[in-house]
Amino acid sequence: MSYSVTVQELIDQLGRLPGIGPKSAQRVAFYLLKAPPEDALRLSRAIAEAKEKVSFCDRCFNLSEGGEECAICRDPRRESRLLCVVEDSQDIVAVERTQEFRGRYHVLQGAFSPIDGIGVDQLRVKELMTRVGEEDVEEVIVATNPNLEGEATAALLVKYLKPMGVRVTRLASGLPVGGDLEYADELTLGRALEGRQLLDAGDD
Amino acid sequence: MSYSVTVQELIDQLGRLPGIGPKSAQRVAFYLLKAPPEDALRLSRAIAEAKEKVSFCDRCFNLSEGGEECAICRDPRRESRLLCVVEDSQDIVAVERTQEFRGRYHVLQGAFSPIDGIGVDQLRVKELMTRVGEEDVEEVIVATNPNLEGEATAALLVKYLKPMGVRVTRLASGLPVGGDLEYADELTLGRALEGRQLLDAGDD
Repeated sequence: MSYSVTVQELIDQLGRLPGIGPKSAQRVAFYLLKAPPEDALRLSRAIAEAKEKVSFCDRCFNLSEGGEECAICRDPRRESRLLCVVEDSQDIVAVERTQEFRGRYHVLQGAFSPIDGIGVDQLRVKELMTRVGEEDVEEVIVATNPNLEGEATAALLVKYLKPMGVRVTRLASGLPVGGDLEYADELTLGRALEGRQLLDAGDD
Repeated sequence: MSYSVTVQELIDQLGRLPGIGPKSAQRVAFYLLKAPPEDALRLSRAIAEAKEKVSFCDRCFNLSEGGEECAICRDPRRESRLLCVVEDSQDIVAVERTQEFRGRYHVLQGAFSPIDGIGVDQLRVKELMTRVGEEDVEEVIVATNPNLEGEATAALLVKYLKPMGVRVTRLASGLPVGGDLEYADELTLGRALEGRQLLDAGDD
């Protein structure tokens, strides 16, 4: 005996999700089979509804609901001279949480990683260049992740954007606030040294 | 900015699944949002379909599809004098894979664990006793997991079933086949010693 077609299809579909292996897929499937119908159907509906309502913004490729442009692109109070480039929509939520940024965004929908088949053409780089050419962008803040792919993406963007006469900046790397020097890895500490800033006594 | 209601609902529903924390829920949600609609909707449908078609067997509480009794209970070639008691439907698949068992099953739908609020009343113990009383069961093989909860469940079942005059057995504990004595934990090795079996030279 193995599982019925219906149960196997559920396990298979769950197993395709990222971070869910065959064992977890089976556990989740049985959880759903045992759960009250309304709970399981709420998940089923949430997926269907999200696919129906949520799409990507025509301009910045952030998630957008009920319209062609996302809420940030439609907001006239947002400064269009500042453009923050991120890898994914999730990163916008992280930057917004700082309440330090009032500009606009551009979502690349990934990071440069030729080994995974993600080249410039798979990212929204062409669209970024069009925006920089057409909108009155003065500064592009590259907020890709501080890892190998993110750094490669940043290097690539500088190469493309510099000739267009726009200022290209990168988020600072260094010690996380509340962190401990003793436990910092050597790369982070190296970056923190490299990017050290002058302390101002305040009275000169 | 945080996520829209639709996206947040998707993240919340995914986060309720076992083994999926808030970060994984977010990653899975964004995977689904980015996936081709047909892929995401296949998962949505698989859940809805499973909840619609799959129920629990009236007799043994195994998963059952398209009927009140499961395929094993309906199979007349199954010996009803042997009853294998397991914690979950998944365990039936594991036992069936051995091709060593031709009896019937009874799924407890959990294991005795008062600390998690699972007492005798939450398990299908009453139904098991009714079956043992009504069907011509000669032996109940307790195949609960060899862990704390499984052992507690086994002890409980013996207490209830012995007075009914039925033979109650337990799966053997010991060294896994292909395992290494050196790496066996002391409990398993202790069990293997305790349950040691006489070697037969074959000629006496």
